[in-house]
Amino acid sequence: MKNRLIYKYIGKVLIAFSILMLFPILVSLIYKEPIKPFLLPLSISLIFGMLLNSIKVDNMSLYAKDGFIIVALSWIIISILGALPFLFINLSFFDAFFESVSGFTTSGATIFKDVEVLSHSFLFWRSFTHFIGGMGVITFVIAIIPLSRNDKSMHVLKAEMPGPTVAKLVPSIKKTLFFLYLIYISLTVLEMILLMIGGLSFFDSLLISISTAGTGGFASLNTSLASLSLFCKYVVALFMFLFGVNFNIYFLIVIMKDIKSALKSEELRVYILLYVFTVGFILLNTYKLFTNFSEALSSAIFHVSSFMTSTGFSIGDVNIYPTQCRIIILFLMLVSACAGSTCGGFKISRLLIVIKKIKRDLLKVVHPHNVNVITFEGKKVEEEVVNNTCAFLFLYAFLIIIIMFLISFNGFSFEVTLNAVFTTFANVGLCFNISNFAMFSNFSKIVLSLGMLFGRLEIFPLIILFSNLRK
Amino acid sequence: MKNRLIYKYIGKVLIAFSILMLFPILVSLIYKEPIKPFLLPLSISLIFGMLLNSIKVDNMSLYAKDGFIIVALSWIIISILGALPFLFINLSFFDAFFESVSGFTTSGATIFKDVEVLSHSFLFWRSFTHFIGGMGVITFVIAIIPLSRNDKSMHVLKAEMPGPTVAKLVPSIKKTLFFLYLIYISLTVLEMILLMIGGLSFFDSLLISISTAGTGGFASLNTSLASLSLFCKYVVALFMFLFGVNFNIYFLIVIMKDIKSALKSEELRVYILLYVFTVGFILLNTYKLFTNFSEALSSAIFHVSSFMTSTGFSIGDVNIYPTQCRIIILFLMLVSACAGSTCGGFKISRLLIVIKKIKRDLLKVVHPHNVNVITFEGKKVEEEVVNNTCAFLFLYAFLIIIIMFLISFNGFSFEVTLNAVFTTFANVGLCFNISNFAMFSNFSKIVLSLGMLFGRLEIFPLIILFSNLRK
Repeated sequence: MKNRLIYKYIGKVLIAFSILMLFPILVSLIYKEPIKPFLLPLSISLIFGMLLNSIKVDNMSLYAKDGFIIVALSWIIISILGALPFLFINLSFFDAFFESVSGFTTSGATIFKDVEVLSHSFLFWRSFTHFIGGMGVITFVIAIIPLSRNDKSMHVLKAEMPGPTVAKLVPSIKKTLFFLYLIYISLTVLEMILLMIGGLSFFDSLLISISTAGTGGFASLNTSLASLSLFCKYVVALFMFLFGVNFNIYFLIVIMKDIKSALKSEELRVYILLYVFTVGFILLNTYKLFTNFSEALSSAIFHVSSFMTSTGFSIGDVNIYPTQCRIIILFLMLVSACAGSTCGGFKISRLLIVIKKIKRDLLKVVHPHNVNVITFEGKKVEEEVVNNTCAFLFLYAFLIIIIMFLISFNGFSFEVTLNAVFTTFANVGLCFNISNFAMFSNFSKIVLSLGMLFGRLEIFPLIILFSNLRK
Repeated sequence: MKNRLIYKYIGKVLIAFSILMLFPILVSLIYKEPIKPFLLPLSISLIFGMLLNSIKVDNMSLYAKDGFIIVALSWIIISILGALPFLFINLSFFDAFFESVSGFTTSGATIFKDVEVLSHSFLFWRSFTHFIGGMGVITFVIAIIPLSRNDKSMHVLKAEMPGPTVAKLVPSIKKTLFFLYLIYISLTVLEMILLMIGGLSFFDSLLISISTAGTGGFASLNTSLASLSLFCKYVVALFMFLFGVNFNIYFLIVIMKDIKSALKSEELRVYILLYVFTVGFILLNTYKLFTNFSEALSSAIFHVSSFMTSTGFSIGDVNIYPTQCRIIILFLMLVSACAGSTCGGFKISRLLIVIKKIKRDLLKVVHPHNVNVITFEGKKVEEEVVNNTCAFLFLYAFLIIIIMFLISFNGFSFEVTLNAVFTTFANVGLCFNISNFAMFSNFSKIVLSLGMLFGRLEIFPLIILFSNLRK
């Protein structure tokens, strides 16, 4: 990390983070709760942020590698800072770090056996970490800092944004980000309004909506959202689904008024198809376990939305699912929804690119002289992107196996181990056979936390950071 | 399948199969047991073989596609013929087919709750199917039929031989196969002699040796090989390990006397490393469960050899393994040992090629202008081979998920379902939580049988056959 610009960038991230810390302080003030837990990380990030930001750099050029390193370092630092408030309510560092990482990575796996004892400001802080993590920390920084003309922030943005490729909606990065935030906040506010119409309080609606927006899953009740009215359950299910859609689709529909192109999106079509199929399948295999059909239907729709978008809210016991449903759910947890959304997993677009690659390569075995190009969303996919997608998916599988191996020493059964790793690595939070993560050892909590970061940042940034630290 | 040469080829396979059926008949005659069970498949294969072989073909050219189709069709037909004897001892067709496929694919998963009631000829037949399947049916055909000068049998051979590439040891296919059979039979005879020195009867030594050769796992006792002496257990463990080595290594050592090149083999080194590491790991995590160290050591060495080479013999209860051992074993079951050996799984060479690919692609993310070539065993790996390897591994993963999904309807737990699919797809036979496959439904048995065939033939032949049948 010879590039001093990296440190300057991290300074900017820290300053941005200190601004974000004002929100939980505001909530503390409103509910007359202590502000000290949030003032500490604010002060630390502000002081170090200003110091690092004052570093003078001559060379303003950022390489792709630097982008990955900035993103990886920022997320680790912010996860540590975000854990500090929890130390004030007597959590161990391991628990606090796990909860913080789970928040920022929008996983929503919790170590709290009882969340109902938490104060308003802490409940808000947990959900707010989802809201920050959903769009990404760097995205926020690039959106608010002034950029020079030859800015290379795209490298940094690419490293944080999920999916195999990053589409600039408009030529300017800032404008692109403006539209993305517009969609993000509008959808969140819309959900809030609908939940309030449904009878929820302002505070509850706010918490649920910002958690949904980041496709996190922290809730303010131990039973997650089971106590919501049927209307509110459907509202949350709908918005979980909507936050799993590539934001480019909304840009096309709302800003460009080009509904036709939007509906042509392969990824969107497969997403809807997979969603409808899975809801039908789960319903068919579980409806006998419910007292009436309406309950079975709402449960299937809600939980498929929750699992598939990696949100992790629940409205009932998912442990009643038979094996065939679990296999489908576990697979969809890993795939998750669309690239360019706030969800986890490895994204439907990567699945589609790989399926097309397999088809192409199989045809090549049969007809060696054919030259076939892979197309996706109507465009040719560069071989480099195909190669990266393959490498990414293999790394995804290897990391899951390695993390499972490390967690297995905790002594839980194979199935519990697998579920714990899948749900954290894919940033889901909800899973079978585990109601909270307090039961895991400190070692497992650190490993699962790293797993969540690897999953959220899509592996490459952290690997590049770690292999760079060794040099 | 317009190419009439395909039918002619299958005719040859059937004739070869009818010759192989003479062996169980010989055993029946020696032990004065009924020969009818084996005479039926012999007659059918001989008659249809002669009919098909008499087909006149003008065009003697075989395409790569035809090779895959011949291999896929041959294996399906032979699995059905090999199931016929079992119908005479009142097995249902599903059970008989499962047992036959399990034999030819050298899996060794059995539907017999009690194998000790079987007659000599049936015990022989089960183990002999391993011996046939280990080297492959087509290999045998190409070894014995006269070839024309411009023969394209290499296409057929490629489709049946395991591993990402097929090396011709010597310019002529026939000579290559001669050496391979020489190694195969010599090792088998050597194991037999050692087992007889260890005190086993001729018949028992024969059965165990031909099963080991094919890395199958059918045994003649319900407790598999638990009753063997310590010496014999180590002999079998050694030969399981040896049959997991690429036969090219033996060719280099024995025929070319080039031990130096042989020991330079990357795949061999990784195989030994993985093997030693796993034995050590299993020992460390299980020795407390045994009454003495010697027992723990022999158990670790034997079972790692058995799992890793996909043989499937056991000498004790593997269900005592804690989760961390299970994860390592399940992973190694899928990887298995070296290409060009008789073992199952996707082979260490593919794992190495993919790891190198990931490394190369990661470097490319950081340094976009670098051009890096992947080398394996001292040679450049063509991009086509890398691409095929990736496609193969993705298909491997997809098929496992699909088969798990289909089996899950049987109502067993997630872990049992996963174990059943891994052990059959990777042609291992031995697994956790399942002692025999009689408990599965007929539907599951057919699906698992197809899974074993997909695994043994390395997916492509069957996919090409099925997609061709639709046309």
